[in-house]
Amino acid sequence: MPKGKLFLIPNVLAENTALSVISPQVKEVISNTKVYLVENARTARRYISSLKLGVNLEEVQMDILDKSTSSEAVAKMMQPLLNGTDVGVISEAGCPGIADPGALAVAYAHQKGIQVVPLSGPSSMFLALMGSGFSGQSFAFHGYLPIDKKERALALRKLESESLKEKRAQMFMETPFRNNRLLQDLLQILSPQTKLCIAKNLTAADELILTKPVSEWKKFPIDLHKIPTVFILQSF
Amino acid sequence: MPKGKLFLIPNVLAENTALSVISPQVKEVISNTKVYLVENARTARRYISSLKLGVNLEEVQMDILDKSTSSEAVAKMMQPLLNGTDVGVISEAGCPGIADPGALAVAYAHQKGIQVVPLSGPSSMFLALMGSGFSGQSFAFHGYLPIDKKERALALRKLESESLKEKRAQMFMETPFRNNRLLQDLLQILSPQTKLCIAKNLTAADELILTKPVSEWKKFPIDLHKIPTVFILQSF
Repeated sequence: MPKGKLFLIPNVLAENTALSVISPQVKEVISNTKVYLVENARTARRYISSLKLGVNLEEVQMDILDKSTSSEAVAKMMQPLLNGTDVGVISEAGCPGIADPGALAVAYAHQKGIQVVPLSGPSSMFLALMGSGFSGQSFAFHGYLPIDKKERALALRKLESESLKEKRAQMFMETPFRNNRLLQDLLQILSPQTKLCIAKNLTAADELILTKPVSEWKKFPIDLHKIPTVFILQSF
Repeated sequence: MPKGKLFLIPNVLAENTALSVISPQVKEVISNTKVYLVENARTARRYISSLKLGVNLEEVQMDILDKSTSSEAVAKMMQPLLNGTDVGVISEAGCPGIADPGALAVAYAHQKGIQVVPLSGPSSMFLALMGSGFSGQSFAFHGYLPIDKKERALALRKLESESLKEKRAQMFMETPFRNNRLLQDLLQILSPQTKLCIAKNLTAADELILTKPVSEWKKFPIDLHKIPTVFILQSF
């Protein structure tokens, strides 16, 4: 029996955007998929409903794949694929498989010869990089920076020097309730001529993407508290 | 007068996919935009036509923004924005602004306080990363590797050791007609246990994404000649 396909299904980044940012292809896959691995069943159901595809959610099976899921549990959740059933992965926001637990399912699929099909859609990292104006010939994503003040300062100086040496744009994120603290640290620690791109609330009505030297950000008050934000720096 | 917005408009990666992978939002922006910066006017027109939006291409103005365009020329092309007209940027394939000349227009927009609006759509790098099964907690894109045999070997060993140290997935590309040569070099130079993801012809009917240790790729013949491909390696 042919195996099922593992579809990596993008979610929205901001409320009430599904009907404008989600492609016909994603809608078609969701219309035809009955088994999902999701980070959060409630929000995944809400997302599917928001697409207005007439999906009967009672016929949809959802298993939880989050950062606490073991490899053994992932193997068990992937069984339907071995029996020929397609499975979709949906994250809390944006594209599954990048800096999120969906990658565990994908790695398992490659081990078992299951076809992986990533679908195009919103990604805050990628939108931020497009909108930053940095060349993108070389870029790196570093996830979360250390929280400890000294370690964070060291990490930021390393990002700056590597950026200069490799002509590389350096992306990172923070838990949204700590964004203002991170911004404070950035303005204090980074060199004044380093350029910083702040991309907040991407795809929402109040989306903002601005790239300025650190020296100018110091004169430009911005509140990022609890607002999903991507930070990118580049030294020149 | 309020300034226009600079829309970063994704193009397709593969032929005959526009109607399935392009979102309603992108279609709406294209319906309302009359001035574009494009890498290639012929293919940009073909892309817009393929969306079947009833756009009259004779009313559409296209300036060429490619790797040979000077900063002065970019400044001139951006004038309509200062006069309140929206401008769209369309690349040869995928998302503008990342590893492509669109970044010049975006950088200029940030200098002049012009709002930049990146739109979600297909990106071969991002789809490859999603589909690789590498964790994506840390990743870097390196563009093209050196062509010289010795320099390339050095670069690959550096990518491997950095990958191990930083737990980082390392992405790179090659001019499609040199893909088979690059693959040969990868299999010869990389450590047998390094994992290599090859993502070819993304979004096309014969798309293929496979992640295997180098030792297994050596037993798995694959032809990448002239086929758009993203390569990702990770050492463990």
